[in-house]
Amino acid sequence: MSELTNRHQTGLPQNLEERFAARAAGMQASEIRSLFAVASRPEIVSLAGGMPNLSALPMEMMASVVHELIATNGAEALQYGSGQGHPKLREQICEVMALEGIRANPDDVIVTTGSQQALDLISRIFIDPGDVVLVEAPSYVGALGTFRQYEAQVVHVSLDDKGLIPEALRQAISAVRASGRKIKFLYLIPNYQNPTGVLLSADRRSEILDICREEQIFVVEDNPYGLLGFDRPSPNAMRAEDSENVIYLGSFSKTIASGLRVGWALVPQSLKEKLVIASESSILCPSNFTQMTISSYLANQPWRDQIASFCKVYKIRRDAMLEALEESFPASATWTKPGGGFYVWVNLPPEVDTKLMMPKAIAAKVAYVPGTAFYADGFGSWAMRLSFCHPTPERIREGVKALGHVVNEEIARRGSGYELK
Amino acid sequence: MSELTNRHQTGLPQNLEERFAARAAGMQASEIRSLFAVASRPEIVSLAGGMPNLSALPMEMMASVVHELIATNGAEALQYGSGQGHPKLREQICEVMALEGIRANPDDVIVTTGSQQALDLISRIFIDPGDVVLVEAPSYVGALGTFRQYEAQVVHVSLDDKGLIPEALRQAISAVRASGRKIKFLYLIPNYQNPTGVLLSADRRSEILDICREEQIFVVEDNPYGLLGFDRPSPNAMRAEDSENVIYLGSFSKTIASGLRVGWALVPQSLKEKLVIASESSILCPSNFTQMTISSYLANQPWRDQIASFCKVYKIRRDAMLEALEESFPASATWTKPGGGFYVWVNLPPEVDTKLMMPKAIAAKVAYVPGTAFYADGFGSWAMRLSFCHPTPERIREGVKALGHVVNEEIARRGSGYELK
Repeated sequence: MSELTNRHQTGLPQNLEERFAARAAGMQASEIRSLFAVASRPEIVSLAGGMPNLSALPMEMMASVVHELIATNGAEALQYGSGQGHPKLREQICEVMALEGIRANPDDVIVTTGSQQALDLISRIFIDPGDVVLVEAPSYVGALGTFRQYEAQVVHVSLDDKGLIPEALRQAISAVRASGRKIKFLYLIPNYQNPTGVLLSADRRSEILDICREEQIFVVEDNPYGLLGFDRPSPNAMRAEDSENVIYLGSFSKTIASGLRVGWALVPQSLKEKLVIASESSILCPSNFTQMTISSYLANQPWRDQIASFCKVYKIRRDAMLEALEESFPASATWTKPGGGFYVWVNLPPEVDTKLMMPKAIAAKVAYVPGTAFYADGFGSWAMRLSFCHPTPERIREGVKALGHVVNEEIARRGSGYELK
Repeated sequence: MSELTNRHQTGLPQNLEERFAARAAGMQASEIRSLFAVASRPEIVSLAGGMPNLSALPMEMMASVVHELIATNGAEALQYGSGQGHPKLREQICEVMALEGIRANPDDVIVTTGSQQALDLISRIFIDPGDVVLVEAPSYVGALGTFRQYEAQVVHVSLDDKGLIPEALRQAISAVRASGRKIKFLYLIPNYQNPTGVLLSADRRSEILDICREEQIFVVEDNPYGLLGFDRPSPNAMRAEDSENVIYLGSFSKTIASGLRVGWALVPQSLKEKLVIASESSILCPSNFTQMTISSYLANQPWRDQIASFCKVYKIRRDAMLEALEESFPASATWTKPGGGFYVWVNLPPEVDTKLMMPKAIAAKVAYVPGTAFYADGFGSWAMRLSFCHPTPERIREGVKALGHVVNEEIARRGSGYELK
């Protein structure tokens, strides 16, 4: 208690704001932070988070994998390892990527603390303050946060139900260059995109690669959901077609377990050294323990079957969500019909503000993420992301139904001319 | 193979250097990188690395800890967790810190992927290009690398066998401020410093705290070795005396296992939010699996006894190294006599260049780290860091003896007027 008292007596250090780096000005708690605290209460149906569903993962098997690892190879698993990542795991990562048509050399793979760290490292080697990063509209909130910390200017490029629109990309490049700014890379999630669930068509993949190669813009292909296609396999990864201009990010968070925090970047050889040095300066080395856990799992367990089990779990939930939306949401709403991944994107009539609507949803015991979280520019106020990955199908139906009531009331209230300020 | 062929046909991307961020210019492979590859060959006695010695850690016990964790709590351990770190582990970290006189609130602890990540995050929130960071002369090579990536100017402050010299600190502050530059923090390792093994005296701790508080300079107290005192307990941590102006970094890498990559920062409350946001942008969240492994271990195993076992292992090796230095090194050499930790710092006559001497040492089957690695300014060419943590006492004696021969020959050769260019 004296600790607390002492702190409050002394108060804030003098001139604290002046003592921070310029980039720290952008480190503000997001509006959705407090929302997540609320959404994690058990009585709330959370359609907000992107937590993988581990119900299909046999825990006794995982327990045996880690026991065996430490008992037989603890001296290595519990020791510092390579900054670039464990050599055997990097080979296995190449086998995993082969499922999406990628031929890669383990020497070009850098293992990271989740693919979030890969995003951070790529930002670190490329972004000077004011540089432009092109991203889909909307895009992954965690990527936007990282780009902001490196003081990038984020320029959104439209997507539709076939993914990023090549013509919109051309126009964005021209407009940015006409303004004299540098474009450092295009960041996109081609498979079951976060937050829309959209799949980028094979034709567009090639066209976008051509544009970016021509314009000398690196493509950062973030692919956590590629193996989570429910109805058919995903098209080949963009990296399968271009090994020179694509920086590929992968992750075991959705296919094995997110709590291990193991992701990776596969990069053109010209970038590898800088990325490894950046990673060593950031974390010294990734955990041998978590890397070797995954390596043992991949070597000794039927991991492809396990991914198929995860797909079944998610497909049932996706179906439940789409059916419930059809039943409960108004005709003026539209939504995506994802073929895989975790997310559905819902567009409501433009007069609805999903951020202002949140307290009502929470009161109705359901949570989502307001659309503005996925734009760097305040856009998306009429949209929301719904995750179907975690709750049971019954809870999803219940939550979507409750949310449908809230939405219908909100539209009616807005239509009546009454505005809550 | 076609992957490799394809790469070499196309060559480097055009204008690659121009496409990097300015900070990437500093991301060059260090000279000691290739050295470490050589030093890890089994025939070489490596006195170079700082790898903890895990021989005292009972692997069956660790295997049971992780088995039990996954079997009983796998759904949490394998899931995403809090960006700030696991709540229970943060409480236990406060108990560990209490051993060094720290009274802390778990809410002010941020768990990181090793304390290296804490260094990275602190640099991120404080350092604008050109800002000054004060560090001991010499200092931890990994910290220097991180400060360089954030484009800090590192200013070294002298230390002697009682640690950082307060008067030298005063002078450095005056000189930097007279030049119009901003000082962002003082970084130091008070206990069994890396690379010198020096312990900062209790008197000086207070005096340095007073100076930094007066001058409004945060103190970053990096303390991986504090519990590894062989002969007597370390003085209280600096953070025990000042909770407002000290950012404390801790780590389980040397007291439990480095392969788990779990460290932490204990920060003044005014800094917490920005650090958590910076960490989320960097890695989303630390691994629940490794955090909960440590948490279970701390809760169920005699961890204080285990640290005492580690101390015994290291003390025997420290003694072996000091005895061997006494026997084999010339009278013109001096070295520190560490009371704990991993390292001895050796000063040779100024005409010896330890970097140029390295190939001869490798030929004699022994490796060390040249002194220049621990300075940002090329200083230290006549010094070397010797680690006693990892090899057996016999190997240490053997390695130091071989190195003594190399050093004696080098001094004789230099003294004879013959210079190798």
